[in-house]
Amino acid sequence: MGVKGFLTSAVAAGIKYQDRLDLGLIYSTNPAVTAGAFTTNQVKAAPVVIDMERLKHEGRAQAVLVNSGCANACTGKQGMADALQSSSLVAKELDIPENMVQLSSTGVIGAQLNMEAITAAIPKLVAGLGPDNFEAVAQAIMTTDTVKKTVRKTVMIGDTEVTLMGMAKGAGMIMPNMATMLSFVLTDVQIGFPELQKALLAGVERTFNRITVDGDTSTNDMVLVMASGEAKNDWIDEDSKAELELFQDTLESVLKELALMIVADGEGASKCITIRVCGAREDDEAEQVARTVANSNLVKTAFFGEDANWGRIIAAMGRSGVKFNPDRVDIAFNDVVIVRNGLAVGKEAEDEASKVLKERNFNVCIDLKEGNGCEEVYTCDFSIDYVKINADYRS
Amino acid sequence: MGVKGFLTSAVAAGIKYQDRLDLGLIYSTNPAVTAGAFTTNQVKAAPVVIDMERLKHEGRAQAVLVNSGCANACTGKQGMADALQSSSLVAKELDIPENMVQLSSTGVIGAQLNMEAITAAIPKLVAGLGPDNFEAVAQAIMTTDTVKKTVRKTVMIGDTEVTLMGMAKGAGMIMPNMATMLSFVLTDVQIGFPELQKALLAGVERTFNRITVDGDTSTNDMVLVMASGEAKNDWIDEDSKAELELFQDTLESVLKELALMIVADGEGASKCITIRVCGAREDDEAEQVARTVANSNLVKTAFFGEDANWGRIIAAMGRSGVKFNPDRVDIAFNDVVIVRNGLAVGKEAEDEASKVLKERNFNVCIDLKEGNGCEEVYTCDFSIDYVKINADYRS
Repeated sequence: MGVKGFLTSAVAAGIKYQDRLDLGLIYSTNPAVTAGAFTTNQVKAAPVVIDMERLKHEGRAQAVLVNSGCANACTGKQGMADALQSSSLVAKELDIPENMVQLSSTGVIGAQLNMEAITAAIPKLVAGLGPDNFEAVAQAIMTTDTVKKTVRKTVMIGDTEVTLMGMAKGAGMIMPNMATMLSFVLTDVQIGFPELQKALLAGVERTFNRITVDGDTSTNDMVLVMASGEAKNDWIDEDSKAELELFQDTLESVLKELALMIVADGEGASKCITIRVCGAREDDEAEQVARTVANSNLVKTAFFGEDANWGRIIAAMGRSGVKFNPDRVDIAFNDVVIVRNGLAVGKEAEDEASKVLKERNFNVCIDLKEGNGCEEVYTCDFSIDYVKINADYRS
Repeated sequence: MGVKGFLTSAVAAGIKYQDRLDLGLIYSTNPAVTAGAFTTNQVKAAPVVIDMERLKHEGRAQAVLVNSGCANACTGKQGMADALQSSSLVAKELDIPENMVQLSSTGVIGAQLNMEAITAAIPKLVAGLGPDNFEAVAQAIMTTDTVKKTVRKTVMIGDTEVTLMGMAKGAGMIMPNMATMLSFVLTDVQIGFPELQKALLAGVERTFNRITVDGDTSTNDMVLVMASGEAKNDWIDEDSKAELELFQDTLESVLKELALMIVADGEGASKCITIRVCGAREDDEAEQVARTVANSNLVKTAFFGEDANWGRIIAAMGRSGVKFNPDRVDIAFNDVVIVRNGLAVGKEAEDEASKVLKERNFNVCIDLKEGNGCEEVYTCDFSIDYVKINADYRS
């Protein structure tokens, strides 16, 4: 099942490995209103640089060419030339303007694109375009991912059914800061570009920007939302507040599901944990505390060991840079309070908490009792397999 | 071999484990000029709070009681009362004022001190004081450390030989920010308190504050330097610049050796790596870039895998918050340049670099070519054993 107005395709181009889907194409039969969010890492891959420039002018795109196996980052003039040549080939084959093509790459940094493989594959890719290949594209963008990440949702805008389908990849180098990894959302909604861009940025801020696997931010992160308009709903613009809010909520739920799939599939991860901080003076401070805890290797290895080691949590909180009174802090695992006013509640509570830690998903709830600021950050545990995966990744 | 003016002692008090040295005492026969540097984590252990207060007034101490097995952090009023009682017992047994006792604890956060064990052990500890137990104390403060960390140096101040002996412990929760872990340096130098404190802070800044094992800062970090004056050198004060500089250099070399021992013994570490950043606009910016690289899990797991994966290095640099032009960056492993002006030098260079990565100690040299700012940070690799150690630590 696809989204009205879009065709997709994926092939095994042999970019890094043989016989593995590694090149995908998304094609909108008409120029789609397209919003993007890109990595804030100042070392940006060639495709990211090109996409940001192209979206700046029109907020429209008609195709996305995406490959795994090579990030085309830190590849200099050659990398830029290769990226431009790829988009030129796609544009020619689809008979659309070159600046309507968005590019996206993921894989090893510093290696040049295998242009021979890509050049040979593009005609096949275009020939294979069809309405039902969304899952194949989602598979083609996987690297260390162990599962394909896709979401489909529908929502009634007025009396018109609007569809959103999203895909994402990402398992390592994940601590987004503005956008993360690769994610593409297709929708047939009819919407203005400023509204779509605003909805995307707001959604990303509360979803992809709230997850962390390892505290590292990639050079290639991007999220694109493309709207074909084929649902023919009444046009959503700045005056249609209720419809915009409805669409935005649905988009955010798509982004959040994809973001949580990334955490759950974090490299080597066996658990998916929500760090919820309440009672901060400001939301920003709550986020900062949550993020510091969510990125602490000591906290994450304790989760892997299923050890309710709250001492490591409070030590991480203490170096977060946010002021609070340690003697007022409460900490709970789900609804089991193990620290009350900075002190251990006792052995019984810790035993209860240990049961919570055996679950695959749980919450750590921290109350600072300083104000009303609240935020959540989503993280995974830190396992032996994370180290194995990343010690071996290039070999 | 000890240091003139100091006696030391260690016993197996049974604080957490049986038959393992876990309680140490350092005693200066006269009040020693004592400088301290303490954790910047706002969650501070009870002994840290007491020590900071006591050193504020006099800059003198006569005893240090130090235990492993329990951090006495996040232990509330009970923890504070226990710490005060420990120092009262030591003071009584040694017949010195209570505020001349410094306290230090390391181990699990959130557990209360085993006061029964400590109370029973203090008389034995005092009875065992002798000139040659420095190594035994260094052993008593170990937790996940696999080796004892001690250094001894002498320096001629004028025509007087001055001795410095230092010990340190620390293997995890190591990213000092002002001071780190536990370290005690004894010296017989005759020196004023302001000079000693200044020398310590300057030395700590360039040594313990430049190491990282896992990016976490402990609640119990402290470094104490105690000077007995028994060397009877001409008093070092603000007017004796040459002697002060000489002493400071020697102190710094003691601190640096201890700091590097901690990195080399980092939990699960198999390598000790110096991240040297040059060509930054300011020293601070060089440090920030070096620190971000030194703390990146992806970089550290690549080191463990002996993979010259510079893409991860440049990705970490890019999220450091420091502005630089990625197209001008050079990166070398020891003297093997593998990135020149942001681009891979080639396969041959990477093969050479791979040889460097097989060594136990090597440097990563990064040149930003933006200015003259230079700094170093010392880190270790990130291994499977780190995860094993920290998933199991409390059990």
